[in-house]
Amino acid sequence: MTVRGFSFSTVEAAIKKPGRKDLGLIFSTVPATASAVFTTSSVKAAPVLVSREHIANGTAQALIVNSGNANACTGEPGIAVAQETARLVALALGIESTAVQVCSTGVIGVQMPFERIQASIPKLVEGLSTGALADVADAIMTTDTFAKMETMRGEAGGVDYSVAGIAKGAGMIMPNMATMLSFIITDAAVEQNFLQQTFRRAVDASFNAITVDGDMSTNDTCLIMANGMAGNPIIGEGSAEGYAFSVTLNAVLLSLAKQIVKDGEGATKFVEIRVTGASNDADAKRAALAIGNSSLVKTAFFGQDANWGRIFAAVGYSGAEVDQTRLSLSFDDVCMARNGIFAGDDAEARGTAVLRQKEFTVSVDLGIGSGTATIYTSDLTHEYVSINADYRS
Amino acid sequence: MTVRGFSFSTVEAAIKKPGRKDLGLIFSTVPATASAVFTTSSVKAAPVLVSREHIANGTAQALIVNSGNANACTGEPGIAVAQETARLVALALGIESTAVQVCSTGVIGVQMPFERIQASIPKLVEGLSTGALADVADAIMTTDTFAKMETMRGEAGGVDYSVAGIAKGAGMIMPNMATMLSFIITDAAVEQNFLQQTFRRAVDASFNAITVDGDMSTNDTCLIMANGMAGNPIIGEGSAEGYAFSVTLNAVLLSLAKQIVKDGEGATKFVEIRVTGASNDADAKRAALAIGNSSLVKTAFFGQDANWGRIFAAVGYSGAEVDQTRLSLSFDDVCMARNGIFAGDDAEARGTAVLRQKEFTVSVDLGIGSGTATIYTSDLTHEYVSINADYRS
Repeated sequence: MTVRGFSFSTVEAAIKKPGRKDLGLIFSTVPATASAVFTTSSVKAAPVLVSREHIANGTAQALIVNSGNANACTGEPGIAVAQETARLVALALGIESTAVQVCSTGVIGVQMPFERIQASIPKLVEGLSTGALADVADAIMTTDTFAKMETMRGEAGGVDYSVAGIAKGAGMIMPNMATMLSFIITDAAVEQNFLQQTFRRAVDASFNAITVDGDMSTNDTCLIMANGMAGNPIIGEGSAEGYAFSVTLNAVLLSLAKQIVKDGEGATKFVEIRVTGASNDADAKRAALAIGNSSLVKTAFFGQDANWGRIFAAVGYSGAEVDQTRLSLSFDDVCMARNGIFAGDDAEARGTAVLRQKEFTVSVDLGIGSGTATIYTSDLTHEYVSINADYRS
Repeated sequence: MTVRGFSFSTVEAAIKKPGRKDLGLIFSTVPATASAVFTTSSVKAAPVLVSREHIANGTAQALIVNSGNANACTGEPGIAVAQETARLVALALGIESTAVQVCSTGVIGVQMPFERIQASIPKLVEGLSTGALADVADAIMTTDTFAKMETMRGEAGGVDYSVAGIAKGAGMIMPNMATMLSFIITDAAVEQNFLQQTFRRAVDASFNAITVDGDMSTNDTCLIMANGMAGNPIIGEGSAEGYAFSVTLNAVLLSLAKQIVKDGEGATKFVEIRVTGASNDADAKRAALAIGNSSLVKTAFFGQDANWGRIFAAVGYSGAEVDQTRLSLSFDDVCMARNGIFAGDDAEARGTAVLRQKEFTVSVDLGIGSGTATIYTSDLTHEYVSINADYRS
């Protein structure tokens, strides 16, 4: 599927291990309406600080991204590198510096090898005629074991448009973003304020609803560019086209977010956690995240142990309003506990069978209100420990 | 060392695997001034609910504790078991039910085998003439690999007294208590209000300053009994004796808390995390806990990887007020980063040498105020995953 007006390029700039593409470029032939959600951490990487300024006007035309080095905790020199990278890309493309977004992912606290980026930019820009979005998805991988991509189609005013996205991120994934980069492009024409609002909502229901290890990174960026090259009437709030666009966008982001969880570092299970009956939605999310972030719960998933008691324990300390005599829990359709106590002996065997699957749902009903939340998580495995004990070496 | 007026007993009641003592009793020949801190979780085990009522009058004379079953998420039947256990112990000892504290630790969600407890109580009470506090420390172990005990001496008005304590808890340890039981006994005479206040402060600076995996349990109980059998003038607030008692009590609790971290499930490292320069103490604790609970930081400790960037990332999302250009970090006396950036090339080798030790200190200065906090944590290892994936089987 083509997203009209966008071109792509990747090169090996030797920022990470030899033999791997590690620098990517996305370019729109015309300035695009754009919006971004950045990490809420107080420790922000240099490219986040620079890109946030550049996108303040609601437009972007190019995005350069590297893996292998996060350019975080690098002080003023790091900011200069991010600014200078944007300037050189802009120069080569004949656009303004502020039209360039800069993103990085990789190790924290090491200065960027700027000369290698500088040397690679001409080749990167030359390559725009030949590259594909999938190449960029490959180039942004760090501990990811597969590239993450999704494309969907929509229609507005009789005109077809495409929404395509890529993402990276395996460990360090937690609501409010994580070492997570995701770039969405569409050739639809979308009104600026509406784009920003619907994009933020879609991020909340997808990337902010997944958790691998509860950590949040310095570099998280989720960005959308809508260049209007499909030629559709501009999509805005309150219209059927606006609703349809939001649905499509949500589906693309949720697909990418689920791919990240499935590729969680060392993960062997994909678990959907649904909390219902909370006194409000915020409480439901609190309870769901406490479950999804509990090391004890996640190791039980790995051990295929139907240990619903650990899940109730996590709900208990989540901060959500809880009446322990009203709690119920199911693994898929097997009720394990009702009104706070064990549902009966055969539940154990049936629940264990559910947990032997690669994917299952944990449903917890708090039994006191109508608040709901759904999040997605993985298990905690030996492999997670191995990957993160050895990541830098 | 003897703590006058206290006697101890343990038996094998077959609540957990055969061959292990799993039921213990502590008895004071006279009613003791008592105080307890229980789990703040909304999901509270039955013995917590019962003991909380019993200790409301500020006295206790006996404590019965079992391992192997938490009696949590067991509903009304679980509460009846805890109440009936207290009643039977009281009957055998010739005291009131409300003078008996009941504690449990072990698996959640399984009904207690009450008949085995009932059958064991006569033998348990008979054994009081022969047992020692160390026996009870053994009987309360679950995934612990060693028994935790500390004893210290004090003096008030020319009279010597003792403070002795035991504890259990390895995984599921997190501030605001955890699957953590700790029982402190002293023969000092201590004024009730003062005992409660100084005990709560000591718990905050010890058990509430350790974290193994960030989880908190349904059963956490920390309890003190002061029976006055030393015959000292009653120790109260605002006196030199009161200050000395607090210091001794703090030392006993901190020793027990550190033993718990050292025995953290699968732990190979003991790490002290000191945060200074925060805008206030609460912010300092927030930052310290974010570091101590980060799976990425803890796996880096396991890998002996001087990855200070992950620590800054944790500080960044902790919620503490942070200016990333003022952050500094040291491993022991090796400064790794100053004003937010790497301190220089030889820091890497020297910092790695620090992390090769079994114990070290991580000092983070936020550089913006005078708030401080210290917490203690362990690393995250393969062994942790193994223990918790297999715990119930």
